[in-house]
Amino acid sequence: MVTKGSILYEGKAKKVYSLQNNNHDNQCVLEFKDDLTAFDGNLKDSRDGKGILNNKISSQLLNYLENQGVSTHFIKCLSDREMLVTKTKIIPIEVVVRNIVAGSLVNRLGLEKGTELAYPVVEFYYKEDKLKDPLINEHHAIAINLATSYQLKEMSNLALRINQLLKQYFYDLNLILVDFKLEFGRVSGEIILSDEITPDTCRLWDKLTKESLDKDNFRENKRDVLAGYEELYQRIQRRLEKDV
Amino acid sequence: MVTKGSILYEGKAKKVYSLQNNNHDNQCVLEFKDDLTAFDGNLKDSRDGKGILNNKISSQLLNYLENQGVSTHFIKCLSDREMLVTKTKIIPIEVVVRNIVAGSLVNRLGLEKGTELAYPVVEFYYKEDKLKDPLINEHHAIAINLATSYQLKEMSNLALRINQLLKQYFYDLNLILVDFKLEFGRVSGEIILSDEITPDTCRLWDKLTKESLDKDNFRENKRDVLAGYEELYQRIQRRLEKDV
Ligand SMILES: Nc1ncnc2c1ncn2[C@@H]1O[C@H](COP(=O)(O)OP(=O)(O)O)[C@@H](O)[C@H]1O
Ligand SMILES: Nc1ncnc2c1ncn2[C@@H]1O[C@H](COP(=O)(O)OP(=O)(O)O)[C@@H](O)[C@H]1O
Ligand SMILES: [Mg+2]
Ligand SMILES: [Mg+2]
Repeated sequence: MVTKGSILYEGKAKKVYSLQNNNHDNQCVLEFKDDLTAFDGNLKDSRDGKGILNNKISSQLLNYLENQGVSTHFIKCLSDREMLVTKTKIIPIEVVVRNIVAGSLVNRLGLEKGTELAYPVVEFYYKEDKLKDPLINEHHAIAINLATSYQLKEMSNLALRINQLLKQYFYDLNLILVDFKLEFGRVSGEIILSDEITPDTCRLWDKLTKESLDKDNFRENKRDVLAGYEELYQRIQRRLEKDV
Repeated sequence: MVTKGSILYEGKAKKVYSLQNNNHDNQCVLEFKDDLTAFDGNLKDSRDGKGILNNKISSQLLNYLENQGVSTHFIKCLSDREMLVTKTKIIPIEVVVRNIVAGSLVNRLGLEKGTELAYPVVEFYYKEDKLKDPLINEHHAIAINLATSYQLKEMSNLALRINQLLKQYFYDLNLILVDFKLEFGRVSGEIILSDEITPDTCRLWDKLTKESLDKDNFRENKRDVLAGYEELYQRIQRRLEKDV
C-alpha cells in the first residue's frame, strides 16, 4: 500500500508529498486542493470538491495520453484527491498550445476572442511567480539555462502531438479545446509530461453553445465554476462507459 | 538631383517621402526628426539637432554594414537630415539582439542590468503601436501572417551576423554594444536591412565608465541625451579619419 510521507512542496493547486516507504524515492503523491487562483494569484477563492474533480479529470486525461503512447508521470489515482506519479525534475517552463484566440493572446496580437488560428501556436512562459510567468522565447530559455535547444524542440513537438490527441478526445465530448498549459519534467534523461491537465489549465468550450466549462468562469465571474468542471467530468465518464 | 516629393508616412522619429522624379518609385527619402519618444510614446521631447546626428550616425553604420556584405536599404546621405534609401515593404517585426541584460529583459528574466549573456538573445516584437509592440514568437508571427517561417529564420540569422559586425565596430570605438533593434523590409523577394541604426535604437556603453551614450539618458533622465549622441558621432568620425 502507498502511504504519503512528508510534504515536499505546496503550490497554488496541489501539495506534493514524498512516499512513506523510502524505497520509492522516484515517486511522489500529488494532492489536489480546493483552491482557485487567477491573475498571478491576485484573484483567490476555494470551492469544496474542486480538487476531487481535478484529480479525477487529470487522471483520466493522463491515462488516455499514456495509452496513446505519450510518456507521462501518471501512475495511478490513489484516492479522491491523491494521485501517484513519477517524481520528475520539473522544467520551469509552462508550455501553452493555442488553437483559438483567447486570454492574453487577444491583446498580444489584437485578434478577437474566438478567432480560429490557422496553425496551433506554441508559447513558452517562464514559470516564476515573482516575475508573473512572463512569455519567453527559446533564446531566453537557453540564456538562463532552463533547458537546452534540443529539449525545447522536444517539448514543443510533444505539446503539438498532445494537442492533436486532446483536440480529438474533447471533440468527441462535444467540446472545443481552445488552449491549454503543460509542464514537463526530466527523469533520467527523458522528458515526460508532468503536472495536471484540468479545467484549471485548459480552456474548453461547448461545441454548440460556446459556453466555457473551465476556469474562465472563475476569472470572469460568469457561470458557477464548479458546475462546468462537474459537467466536463460527466462527459468524460459517459465516454468511458461507452468504451467499456 | 534627388528632390523630395510628397510625404508617404510620418513616424515618431522620421518622415518618409517619395521622390519627385516619378521614375524612382523604388526609392524614398527618410527625413530624421528631432523628436524623442520612449515608453510606448508616453515620454516625449524634442532636442534640436538630434535628427541631424541620427541621420549621420545611421548613414555611417549602414554604409559600414553594406561594405561588410550586408544588404541594406542605404543608398546615400542627401543632406543633414535626409537619407536616400531603397523603398522596402517593412516587415512589422522589430528584431532585437541583446548581448548584455538591460531594459525589459531585467524584469522578464529577473537578471541584473549589466549581466553578460552567454549567447546573444534574439527577440521579435510585433511593431504595432496600438498593442505597445508586444514580444512575440515565431508561431505568433506566422499565425498573423507577418512573415514566413523561412523569413523569420533569415531575419534572425541576419540579426546575429549584424550583431557580430556591430559589436566589433563599436568595440573599436571603446563602446560596448548592449542591445539594438532592427527592422527588415522586402524588396523583390529579398529581405534587406531597413530603418535606422542610431542611439535611439541601440544601447551603447563606454567600455571603461559603463556610461550610456544612447536614449537611456532620455528614458532615465540622466546625462544630457544629446551630448551622448554627439560623443558617439565624434568617435565614429575619428575612426573614419584614421581609416582614410
Ligand atoms: N511529477 C512531478 N514531480 C515533481 N513535481 C511535480 C510533478 N508534477 C507536478 N509537479 C509540481 O508540483 C507543484 C505543485 O503544483 P501546483 O500547486 O500546480 O504548483 P504551482 O502553484 O507552482 O503551479 C508544481 O511546482 C509542479 O510543477
Ligand atoms: N527603406 C524603407 N522603406 C519604407 N519604409 C521604411 C524604410 N525604412 C524605414 N521605413 C519606415 O519608416 C517609418 C518611419 O520611421 P519612424 O519614424 O522610426 O516610425 P515609427 O514611429 O513607426 O517607428 C517606419 O514605419 C519605418 O518602418
Ligand atoms: Mg500549477
Ligand atoms: Mg522607428
